[in-house]
Amino acid sequence: MSMADNQFTLRPIGFVRSELRNRHDAPRQGSDGAPNAWIEIDPSLLQAIQGVAKNDQIILITYLHESHRDVLKVHPRGDKNNPLRGVFATRSPDRPNPLGLHRVKVLEIDGCRLHVGPLEAIDGTPIIDIKPVLAESRDW
Amino acid sequence: MSMADNQFTLRPIGFVRSELRNRHDAPRQGSDGAPNAWIEIDPSLLQAIQGVAKNDQIILITYLHESHRDVLKVHPRGDKNNPLRGVFATRSPDRPNPLGLHRVKVLEIDGCRLHVGPLEAIDGTPIIDIKPVLAESRDW
Repeated sequence: MSMADNQFTLRPIGFVRSELRNRHDAPRQGSDGAPNAWIEIDPSLLQAIQGVAKNDQIILITYLHESHRDVLKVHPRGDKNNPLRGVFATRSPDRPNPLGLHRVKVLEIDGCRLHVGPLEAIDGTPIIDIKPVLAESRDW
Repeated sequence: MSMADNQFTLRPIGFVRSELRNRHDAPRQGSDGAPNAWIEIDPSLLQAIQGVAKNDQIILITYLHESHRDVLKVHPRGDKNNPLRGVFATRSPDRPNPLGLHRVKVLEIDGCRLHVGPLEAIDGTPIIDIKPVLAESRDW
């Protein structure tokens, strides 16, 4: 089967509402001093967040809508002193399928709105999925 | 903006080649006794894996192509004794955007093929993205 025979359509389950307005102002990672932010979940999906609780650690998967999908190598952290490296060996937002992974803490829940942080994604970033960090592993 | 105004198309960057042939035989998580598996990356993306090395811990994002996208609540781990819970508070493969997250170790690299494990994804599962576990955090 050719790799090109398949494609998949994703739809946002919600959006990021943040004081971060553009990607060039955004920290590279949440741990780089990112602010807290609200995420607004589609009201039709309210049932799907039942069980998410204050103080949980969760993983957000976002679609980094301002990314360049034709980039295969980058200078890590945008620093030209760092040798070019394949995007799959970096967290560059520029990559064939520009998904972002963000581990955040749930600070507050207000209906379909979750206050979380720290989050380096910019205002308006579509959210694709939310997953719990697994209890049996520190890693997720 | 309505949530329905947006949609995004993802294309596989590769596929899982595994002895696991169907989702009902697959462990729920890699840590539940999953086998090692090969992942075959699209040869046109060879540059994008430069820098991925043997013994690295990496995160695979897969598209769980046999999932049901209209499911909002599940019994965790498929056990009816567990109360129904929103899918975003579980790792259920059934969810609006059925993406899988898998942390695996790179065991061997042979051109565009990576031997990794343990991996609970079944044979033929499309791979959407590969990210490094970040050195500054045990969590990624």
